[in-house]
Amino acid sequence: MITQRQKIDFYFDFSSPYGYLAATQIDELAARHSRQVMWHPILLGAVFKITGRKALLEQPLVGDYAMRDIARSARLLSVPCRMPDRFPIISVPACRAYYWLKEQDKEQKSQLAIEFCKQVYYAYFAENRDISNKAILLDIAQTLGVDSKQLEVALASADLKQKLRNETSTAIERGVFGSPFMIYDGEPFWGLDHFDQLEKWIESDGW
Amino acid sequence: MITQRQKIDFYFDFSSPYGYLAATQIDELAARHSRQVMWHPILLGAVFKITGRKALLEQPLVGDYAMRDIARSARLLSVPCRMPDRFPIISVPACRAYYWLKEQDKEQKSQLAIEFCKQVYYAYFAENRDISNKAILLDIAQTLGVDSKQLEVALASADLKQKLRNETSTAIERGVFGSPFMIYDGEPFWGLDHFDQLEKWIESDGW
Repeated sequence: MITQRQKIDFYFDFSSPYGYLAATQIDELAARHSRQVMWHPILLGAVFKITGRKALLEQPLVGDYAMRDIARSARLLSVPCRMPDRFPIISVPACRAYYWLKEQDKEQKSQLAIEFCKQVYYAYFAENRDISNKAILLDIAQTLGVDSKQLEVALASADLKQKLRNETSTAIERGVFGSPFMIYDGEPFWGLDHFDQLEKWIESDGW
Repeated sequence: MITQRQKIDFYFDFSSPYGYLAATQIDELAARHSRQVMWHPILLGAVFKITGRKALLEQPLVGDYAMRDIARSARLLSVPCRMPDRFPIISVPACRAYYWLKEQDKEQKSQLAIEFCKQVYYAYFAENRDISNKAILLDIAQTLGVDSKQLEVALASADLKQKLRNETSTAIERGVFGSPFMIYDGEPFWGLDHFDQLEKWIESDGW
């Protein structure tokens, strides 16, 4: 059993550029403090219905700023990042694939499923591949040694659909409303630019 | 004439808790790099009409998080901060008073007007005083040695009303949509948690 102080819950949407940037940093942050990251891809669209927010990039003035800030933050982190030609996309199959891989992979602390997340994000925001396309997701899984036929069958299963709905509902119950969103020891941190507060909180056990 | 690289334009709304926290830090940040801060109180309400956003604290889920994050950020900065009983308030008279003080005070680089901003923010977010109340604003001005009767007359002047409208319009033209919002050398930085990027940008002349 992993306690609240041993893990960082990391919520994100595969369509979120800030989520992508955060995904390139979160494991290193956790490793510096011997914490484990629990990856939770969710559907922000369901969350936006509750908060009444729109995606940043769809808002006048804010969207232009966010485009610039995403590129600037990526350069600062030396992470390749470009806005994909198709944006935003439906991230349902990518999320479902992650939760299926996680179920297959319990003994290894979900390393394969987490690597899948990272590669899906990279495919979308660095390589401009359309990750709403199942064939592309299956291709990524296959390069990781996954039986892509088995995954393809699983993606249509009712259990897996329910699993994603549950994860998104749980996220909302925990107050998650954006991407990335981290929860450590019951304390919520929203946004890539709250990584420094998250790390200080871990180091100093709060303040 | 102050060049784009000698100054930091600092936009904020007197009703914004993050603006208050930023106002306690921005002059020190600028001083570390021999930059001058140009203070611009504006009316975010006018900006929200364009972006379609609501104030953070009015949004479901987001509001609860923001309350917690504001208190947490204030503790980290060792800045006294509490949510005022009346929130949000009309900040029109406080803004107008600032621009009048600034006009009176050109030779001293607006130090008196800036001090007024800081004291108004402190009165609101540390002392729970209602800064939409003109009597309270006049009182704050008087303790700074200002002729409060002259200020009271000025607050009703058409010129001053137009000045605030112009400042808010200019802010929108420059892409300002939140509080705090900083522009340095043409580069926009949104939010207290972008102070580190702003400072890095000044230090390294961009990246």
